[in-house]
Amino acid sequence: MSLNLQTHTEHFTNPLYLESGRILEPYDITYETYGTLNEDKSNVIVVCHALTGSHHAAGTYEGDNKAGWWNGFIGSGKAIDTDKYFVICSNVIGSCFGSTGPMSPQHPHHEPYRYKFPVVSIKDMIKAQRILFDRLDIHRVEAIIGGSMGGMQALQFAIHYPNFANKIIALAATHAAQPWAIAFNKVAQESILKDPDFKQGYYDPEVIKEQGLSGMAVGRMAGHISFLSHKTMREKFGRDYKSTDGLYELFGKFQVESYLEYNGYTFTKWFDPLAYIYITKAINIYDLSRGFDSLTEAVKRISSKLTLISFRDDVLFKNIEMKELAQELESVRNSNYTYIDVDSDYGHDAFLVELDKFEIYVKDALNG
Amino acid sequence: MSLNLQTHTEHFTNPLYLESGRILEPYDITYETYGTLNEDKSNVIVVCHALTGSHHAAGTYEGDNKAGWWNGFIGSGKAIDTDKYFVICSNVIGSCFGSTGPMSPQHPHHEPYRYKFPVVSIKDMIKAQRILFDRLDIHRVEAIIGGSMGGMQALQFAIHYPNFANKIIALAATHAAQPWAIAFNKVAQESILKDPDFKQGYYDPEVIKEQGLSGMAVGRMAGHISFLSHKTMREKFGRDYKSTDGLYELFGKFQVESYLEYNGYTFTKWFDPLAYIYITKAINIYDLSRGFDSLTEAVKRISSKLTLISFRDDVLFKNIEMKELAQELESVRNSNYTYIDVDSDYGHDAFLVELDKFEIYVKDALNG
Repeated sequence: MSLNLQTHTEHFTNPLYLESGRILEPYDITYETYGTLNEDKSNVIVVCHALTGSHHAAGTYEGDNKAGWWNGFIGSGKAIDTDKYFVICSNVIGSCFGSTGPMSPQHPHHEPYRYKFPVVSIKDMIKAQRILFDRLDIHRVEAIIGGSMGGMQALQFAIHYPNFANKIIALAATHAAQPWAIAFNKVAQESILKDPDFKQGYYDPEVIKEQGLSGMAVGRMAGHISFLSHKTMREKFGRDYKSTDGLYELFGKFQVESYLEYNGYTFTKWFDPLAYIYITKAINIYDLSRGFDSLTEAVKRISSKLTLISFRDDVLFKNIEMKELAQELESVRNSNYTYIDVDSDYGHDAFLVELDKFEIYVKDALNG
Repeated sequence: MSLNLQTHTEHFTNPLYLESGRILEPYDITYETYGTLNEDKSNVIVVCHALTGSHHAAGTYEGDNKAGWWNGFIGSGKAIDTDKYFVICSNVIGSCFGSTGPMSPQHPHHEPYRYKFPVVSIKDMIKAQRILFDRLDIHRVEAIIGGSMGGMQALQFAIHYPNFANKIIALAATHAAQPWAIAFNKVAQESILKDPDFKQGYYDPEVIKEQGLSGMAVGRMAGHISFLSHKTMREKFGRDYKSTDGLYELFGKFQVESYLEYNGYTFTKWFDPLAYIYITKAINIYDLSRGFDSLTEAVKRISSKLTLISFRDDVLFKNIEMKELAQELESVRNSNYTYIDVDSDYGHDAFLVELDKFEIYVKDALNG
């Protein structure tokens, strides 16, 4: 069967009330669907994307040579089987791939919001998605799944819309951003903010797409460190060195340096700097316990079946963080959860790369 | 007894032949001594400093309120007991605290070398020190000790001057820089190089000292991540937040962000950007096996008693790296070494901070 990939954008004119007390009005949400919605709408799976991901989770656009970010996972016969499920993935608000973000025009003007864009939280992101699902007349889903910031969204759904999803599957995520992750985001934010070509937020996005933005490239390089692990880097790069005139050339390059440069500078051509600042902010302020007396009180609200998957060598969101969440569930006698620490030394990006190591757990969660 | 702190600079007019084939001529080495040299010169301990350290390892200069970087370790009755030992710590070539580096005048001109400064290696650094000791008429020492890049120097001494030190103590170091550490250095280098105020190396150092250099600040922030650990950051900073108008202010700050900003920006006022680039390059190209068929062949040369100390949660130079060196020693049936993995979750900086956790091993090494 075909993937039945469809891309849509919905426009909303009612205000979106944000956690900060501010509003977003009007706003768009761009989303993709795969598979076919069944008659009683009981086969919906929501997929949530990570920091720089998008609604394009699977399939390949015409003329494009790169498939969606979880293509190995979503499709006919795959772990998220589109023969069976109707899959929806939407671009989060604050991002830059169609949903309203800091570079969207600020109504009624045609100028982008830039810094006038309100701070959005993970909770705001899922609230917007919930409103999208209402529009689609979907009021309950079979499962919500995501990794990294996608996992944060899945968990936030579990707490704030406890009757919305039968199953929640969160991978490579945490219950609250820890200073270690905030520190990596800080390096990226500071590096962007201090780049004169960022023009204190008043950059021309077309110029940046063409010329790159070294501050964002440097920040992304730091990010890439946190996405891998010591061991993966050794296996991938070793001490391989490329040079024109020997090791003693000041700017000869180790392979790991070329990798970081390539990924850092390419990134600035496809991602928006202000979106990066707003989304990393959303990650930093993410804390499931906010609005509750404690994390314990927060997890008491959960009624979906939870599957928590961490990766042993995740450097960004340490497995201990997911374990802490599991312990909270244990402490409130929630017996409707599974916690798996995947034996992986790939690092944080394992949720995108080592599908074979955890797809069995996702299949079990969906079918079990 | 007093520390007997003395600071000197020696000037050398003979060329220093560098590993790259280039020469440095003339050059200065600034160093400090503590304690008193005994009559037969048998009580010398050489201390080697890390990336941004200096010859000022102990004691306090008049009018200064900060003591040397290993003050808790060097002094009367301390682990490196200046009642007993004569301690020498010299600023490495390539640095910026008195020894010749990229901002030193290039003879016979008065203009600084800047990029014309040759790439120096860890081996070059210890060669220069060896020449200094010759000048001081010291031809054998009791021990050489250092952490991080200081540990690299100590190990390089063990291999290249096998008859020079009775004992070698290396902490929080490695046998060769791994891509993980090189990646952190890359972020710092790239961030400095792309800062327009760096002026492609033609900056005015006085202006930088006064105004700071945001590119170097960002790079140093990345460095600080690698100096700590996930756990230490949590204990130090948690999710504490300083804000003027609530969590939703885009630029409100988590405590870890303030910490990174403070240390990043302060750093640019006391360290030279080109020195940072040259010294991180020296760290990146450090590899004890260079010039040998293998690391095994290299370690066969060692005849000093070796003490290798790693820290369990060192994120920068993982304990596994030191363990690999110990395994090499084992493989060549060297029975004259001790390897200790210190039970610490502080991170890389444990060698500067958690003295109480390892001073017993250093004392044992020195006295045993």
